[in-house]
Amino acid sequence: MMSCKKALDETGGDMAKALDLLRKKGEAKAGERSARTTSQGIVCSYIHSNDRLGVLLQMGCETDFVARTDQFKELAHDIAMQVAATNPLTISPEEVSHELVEKEREIWKEQLKHEGKKEQMFDKIMEGKEKKFREEASLLKQPFVKNPDLTIEQILKDAITKMGENIKVVRFSRFSL
Amino acid sequence: MMSCKKALDETGGDMAKALDLLRKKGEAKAGERSARTTSQGIVCSYIHSNDRLGVLLQMGCETDFVARTDQFKELAHDIAMQVAATNPLTISPEEVSHELVEKEREIWKEQLKHEGKKEQMFDKIMEGKEKKFREEASLLKQPFVKNPDLTIEQILKDAITKMGENIKVVRFSRFSL
Repeated sequence: MMSCKKALDETGGDMAKALDLLRKKGEAKAGERSARTTSQGIVCSYIHSNDRLGVLLQMGCETDFVARTDQFKELAHDIAMQVAATNPLTISPEEVSHELVEKEREIWKEQLKHEGKKEQMFDKIMEGKEKKFREEASLLKQPFVKNPDLTIEQILKDAITKMGENIKVVRFSRFSL
Repeated sequence: MMSCKKALDETGGDMAKALDLLRKKGEAKAGERSARTTSQGIVCSYIHSNDRLGVLLQMGCETDFVARTDQFKELAHDIAMQVAATNPLTISPEEVSHELVEKEREIWKEQLKHEGKKEQMFDKIMEGKEKKFREEASLLKQPFVKNPDLTIEQILKDAITKMGENIKVVRFSRFSL
């Protein structure tokens, strides 16, 4: 990552600007890293105290070294707990099934008709509704339960920057009675 | 369950016969119970010590009372460990997918031709191979790793008899890196 000194040099000694520059560089780096293969990682679980709800989660990273760190394990555990609490359908919005979205679209259409909205507005409104539906159903776009100011996606980006490796949720399974 | 005294009465005081009768009555009882609904139960997990292999398992029973017993929890944990060790594809032989079986059948057919077996024998041989393949791929027919003299199905039947409720593996998920 860029050094603080270099950031200060480049911003003419303005601390606020230097920090902003560092953050942007960090995000850019995280962006680059997120394309890298994650063949290592861990499988972890979260079982709720009543034994009637459980999550199995596979988190991926690039090296066994990072997989063994407490930081990585804690992150995996937090996300398993998130899945238990919020019951996402998929990891990313794109993965929400076409069938499910179509079913919802039928309902929205009826609602819009009922509300007396103009037909030519339907497509635009439905597009927005679909985006929102896909985001709410997917883990990455959800607010993190332990800090709702950040989404899971942002939490992962932070972790990628801090740990210096691509990190991702590979898959999860959630059983509830 | 039938009392020992009644069994001895019915077998004219022959202890061996009385025990045999009790065992049969027990199995019959387990058979009856296995049709009953299992709406209660627990979700448990087994994570292998290397953190690279994990199983989530839902065990069902009839009442919350049985679900809370150590005996039931231990059984669920043992079966989760079994799934981690043996990697079954399904719970029962019938659940093994048709596509998978068809793929195997093609291979067996080629093998039988190669071995010079008579065409009219193919169906009979393939039937046996399919049965074996389905059984090996399913959790219930596998020998229990902690006691290979018994299958998981037998372990469950014993548990049903002992705990007096229908007990079954509802679903499992296995992640491995």
